[in-house]
Amino acid sequence: MTSSDVNVSVDELQLASELSGGESRAGSADIAEYALWLADDALILSQQLGAWISRAPELEEDVALANIALDLLGHARSLLRYAGSWDDRSEDDLAYFRDESEFRSSWLVEQPNGDFAQTIARQFIASTYMFELYRALSSSTDPTLAAIAVKSHKEVDYHRDHAVQWVLRLGDGTDESRERITRAFRDLWPYADELFRDEPLIDRLGDAAARPSLLRAGFDAVVDTVFNEADLSDLLEELRQSKASSAGGRRGSHATPLGHILAEMQVLARRHPGATW
Amino acid sequence: MTSSDVNVSVDELQLASELSGGESRAGSADIAEYALWLADDALILSQQLGAWISRAPELEEDVALANIALDLLGHARSLLRYAGSWDDRSEDDLAYFRDESEFRSSWLVEQPNGDFAQTIARQFIASTYMFELYRALSSSTDPTLAAIAVKSHKEVDYHRDHAVQWVLRLGDGTDESRERITRAFRDLWPYADELFRDEPLIDRLGDAAARPSLLRAGFDAVVDTVFNEADLSDLLEELRQSKASSAGGRRGSHATPLGHILAEMQVLARRHPGATW
Repeated sequence: MTSSDVNVSVDELQLASELSGGESRAGSADIAEYALWLADDALILSQQLGAWISRAPELEEDVALANIALDLLGHARSLLRYAGSWDDRSEDDLAYFRDESEFRSSWLVEQPNGDFAQTIARQFIASTYMFELYRALSSSTDPTLAAIAVKSHKEVDYHRDHAVQWVLRLGDGTDESRERITRAFRDLWPYADELFRDEPLIDRLGDAAARPSLLRAGFDAVVDTVFNEADLSDLLEELRQSKASSAGGRRGSHATPLGHILAEMQVLARRHPGATW
Repeated sequence: MTSSDVNVSVDELQLASELSGGESRAGSADIAEYALWLADDALILSQQLGAWISRAPELEEDVALANIALDLLGHARSLLRYAGSWDDRSEDDLAYFRDESEFRSSWLVEQPNGDFAQTIARQFIASTYMFELYRALSSSTDPTLAAIAVKSHKEVDYHRDHAVQWVLRLGDGTDESRERITRAFRDLWPYADELFRDEPLIDRLGDAAARPSLLRAGFDAVVDTVFNEADLSDLLEELRQSKASSAGGRRGSHATPLGHILAEMQVLARRHPGATW
């Protein structure tokens, strides 16, 4: 297709993902591995949100979730390309031809969509974390990671806002909506901890990475404000007493549902390698 | 959410659908019915394409199909709002609370996704038709329909281009890809005819509507060119001899798969009317 025929949204997306992926090559295996951590969180969350398309309870929400899924897919693509530049693998190689133990996604994003409240609770935790992550990573000493972070940060800002609005609406809504968002946070909170753990890789990367433990304060501040506003402060007290999951996604140990997510995502590409019949 | 927090793509989409739906009220039951014809084609096609998200054979194709689905959902929303303005129904009322016999979609868009070639053949016929439709409707005497058509035409231009590129790639590809796109066109061609039938409603609407039979010449010209280029001229000869389906979507008689599509699309909204728990 010629570029003049392409509509604005597609054009912007392609351009943006091309720009932020760039042509630069990852400088070390550690950088590539780190890019994969971030890519896989975005990729898996994007695939999960995609399942809501055409099933959301309002057309407007259909559009919102689809756009968030597309943004995340854009982040994932930029990061996958950068990760693959280290050992000459394409974004499609990395998305479709890695096995479960080679994925580096966190357990949080692997948790099932559940009902709408569960999706929102997962979305709130993930996007509040990603907001802090990409803000910090914008000053990475690795210029490619910094460029991807700057672009992603702007979009995650909207994702977080979307989730916050829903937490407020559900928390401060009917008895049933309040009960559902409460249950959702009880289920998902144990998986927040993994996002803020400093694995050995982080030490090796120094200022090229955003140090997870340092992102926690900003995350907590937002959570405090929102739970307070949604009249869920007692719940927050309770959540903070709860035991964290041992979740080991960064080391390739995954939550049960990842197998199903990958099966669905990879089946077509594996059946027709190279996407040619 | 405040508008400054919203990212560009979502903002543009929402703004665009608000602008082209406008606040104007449909001037007659016939205009509302006609808006529903167009809306339902876009809505059902959008839902079907949505099912490809996270299942396409390439990440880039994931993004392309998701964007097309979102564009179509935007067109559907504008048209549904306008249709509903006649008797005070919301876009969500019309999308989620009509029964199968109240839908006005054509049989073409109701045909299953099948394999990727089938989706592309459906997409090629639908978008080539929609391109002619919205071009003609841009000079409708109904200003709201004209405004929606102008916006939709630009986006459908890209959809058509996307489908054309794939027809060329599959038709002129391997033996298997050629066989698959050939089979797909054999299956889908009989449903093209319905798109170009002048029902009595069209006579009553006069210059407010785009007369379907007058769109056929432009459609045929594009089909000729593309099939020629894809070395599928013999197939086109054969297709033109084939018998048209009796398809009566505009009168509420539908292809078998519509029931399943609606069940999936409507289940959540019907379980929680008003989208509140």
